[in-house]
Amino acid sequence: MRDVYVIGGGLTRFGELWEHSLRDLFVQAATDAIRDARADRLDGMYIGCMSSGLFVEQEHLSSLLADYLGVAPVPAVRVESACASGGMAFRSAFFEVASGASEVVLAGGVEKMTDGADVTRALATASDQEYEASQGITFPGLYAMMARSHMQQHGTTREEIASVAVKNHENGLLNPHAQIHARITIDQVLASARVADPLRLLDCSPISDGASAVVLASEAVARRSGRALIKVIGVGAATDAIALHARSDLAGLEVVARAAAKAYAMSGKGPRDVNVAEVHDCFTIAEIMATEALGLVSRGRGGAAVRAGEPSREGRIPVNTSGGLKAKGHPVGATGIAQIVEVVTQLRGEADKRQIKGARIGLAQNMGGSGGSATVHILEAI
Amino acid sequence: MRDVYVIGGGLTRFGELWEHSLRDLFVQAATDAIRDARADRLDGMYIGCMSSGLFVEQEHLSSLLADYLGVAPVPAVRVESACASGGMAFRSAFFEVASGASEVVLAGGVEKMTDGADVTRALATASDQEYEASQGITFPGLYAMMARSHMQQHGTTREEIASVAVKNHENGLLNPHAQIHARITIDQVLASARVADPLRLLDCSPISDGASAVVLASEAVARRSGRALIKVIGVGAATDAIALHARSDLAGLEVVARAAAKAYAMSGKGPRDVNVAEVHDCFTIAEIMATEALGLVSRGRGGAAVRAGEPSREGRIPVNTSGGLKAKGHPVGATGIAQIVEVVTQLRGEADKRQIKGARIGLAQNMGGSGGSATVHILEAI
Repeated sequence: MRDVYVIGGGLTRFGELWEHSLRDLFVQAATDAIRDARADRLDGMYIGCMSSGLFVEQEHLSSLLADYLGVAPVPAVRVESACASGGMAFRSAFFEVASGASEVVLAGGVEKMTDGADVTRALATASDQEYEASQGITFPGLYAMMARSHMQQHGTTREEIASVAVKNHENGLLNPHAQIHARITIDQVLASARVADPLRLLDCSPISDGASAVVLASEAVARRSGRALIKVIGVGAATDAIALHARSDLAGLEVVARAAAKAYAMSGKGPRDVNVAEVHDCFTIAEIMATEALGLVSRGRGGAAVRAGEPSREGRIPVNTSGGLKAKGHPVGATGIAQIVEVVTQLRGEADKRQIKGARIGLAQNMGGSGGSATVHILEAI
Repeated sequence: MRDVYVIGGGLTRFGELWEHSLRDLFVQAATDAIRDARADRLDGMYIGCMSSGLFVEQEHLSSLLADYLGVAPVPAVRVESACASGGMAFRSAFFEVASGASEVVLAGGVEKMTDGADVTRALATASDQEYEASQGITFPGLYAMMARSHMQQHGTTREEIASVAVKNHENGLLNPHAQIHARITIDQVLASARVADPLRLLDCSPISDGASAVVLASEAVARRSGRALIKVIGVGAATDAIALHARSDLAGLEVVARAAAKAYAMSGKGPRDVNVAEVHDCFTIAEIMATEALGLVSRGRGGAAVRAGEPSREGRIPVNTSGGLKAKGHPVGATGIAQIVEVVTQLRGEADKRQIKGARIGLAQNMGGSGGSATVHILEAI
């Protein structure tokens, strides 16, 4: 298997972008990524998108976007794994370059969620339709059960959970692409509207429009590009039952632990080697559970660790320097690739005021549904 | 790049299968494929599906199906490219094995279309929503314009177009998996209800439920399996504008010609080497245009060739021995993989009464929308 590098990244602003269509957003991010990569060719394209069918009544996105980007007849494939669509698109692009079939492949993600569709119902199609969605449960409810379980098993407090939102909003203030630029306090989180007990409005990531893209390339192309050499050293993915009732433990994310084990094994690195991590905080509790499953903090200590400042920018292992899904926004198909863009930005030392000094190894963890699918990617500045 | 083999295939019956859910259908096809492959492991899974979101309100299909197949935590990815979803899933699975990352990968396809959704509207999301679907045009209308253009440019007659349906229904009679088992005549096609002039009801493939799966493997695993060695020798894909107004020629399928050029170049074979072909006859005219774009018949002669019996089972180049989308049925996400299953069956010499004697090289051509995306795969019995 050949080595694969990320040589460019691009990102739109995330938010309620009513003035831009889905195709405009994607073209913007992809053009930025191609320019950043100084790429003069593209051999293939993968696009993560969860549900353009339900959100904007458009499937067959791959060709539409290849055409609007001006690169057709380049082969293009849309990849879907709910909110892990971006991570899975990155993985597929990785294999195409690693196989030797292609030299330069773009992996992007996009979602247009605020144009009028019944968003919560559309998102619920990422749960088990026959056993969950059809019974009326939606994602805040599913994550509320996971949060309650974590609180009961590990003594995690409401304040600890809220401190994830406080930290990520703090980071989001330094990210010009972020949807939300607002400092908040634990008291504000606890006083915000109850959505699904124990989760409140400020525990939830927002509904967002946005797009993201990175360019993957062989070593030869990466060296010619003149860009910093950011190598993909670990690739891991896993699946689990998408319905919560089929899981043995609601307080853990087995799917993340399994994906991480593969990525760590491939890279020869462990959690202690990671300098910066972007994790999937669709709800505050998800970040706590993800950092535990990744081994960045020990099991059950995720909440306490946040309170102790460990995943803060100046802490032991900075998590979600971008602001995370919570503050940066969560256009679901775009999220996995946006995480890679942040990791690359950090490893290049181009993260401006949110730069983690000396970051050489970064990790991105993307997740679908309530933990039905996950990807973990590890990148290293060579 | 490593060599890749297809070591097993499975197929449900296609049709209005109200007694089976989407997950049941997929598990049935995938189980058959795994058993046929004598596989004792699975390293990854790709599932082609166009729009489970719109058809049955279920996204996040990859994990759901990995779970129900009993193979989670195996990584699984859903791939979408409208009606070319299956072909693109096969392509992605090919890269994963070719890269050396995995030894055994399943590529499947599934669609559940008859459970009550507004099917024609859902299918229209494979056209350009902003320029086509929102104006009210649906696929019969788009292909009607292509048919009219072909008739005007090349003098193709209504009878020639109808003879595609007659031939494919004839083949479908010999395929136990086919949705339609009915011999028809040209007169019956011409007398059937007008759908979008010049196309009539018997020019259109039916709405179907169904699933399909194949198992791809490295050479080492293929040899150990004891199954016939069917090697993937050509892989090609391309994109084009999904909106007809952006094409320079409505009577040709440039996207198929480009995908074919890649597959032929990789395989070192040409159209004359192909012994049997499955092509994407979502409408009768599509088969005529596809055989021309593949170089199986010369440009403009596609209609005359069918009348002359060239693509019949006893003709020069048998096309759609399975019955094609027209008679076998067209559960859109499952179609691309079902074509590969038919080609593998022919190359193994296991096609029973529809067997093409001495078939050693087979081709499968899958297409999205009105020609926005296409894949061409060439397989050889070693």
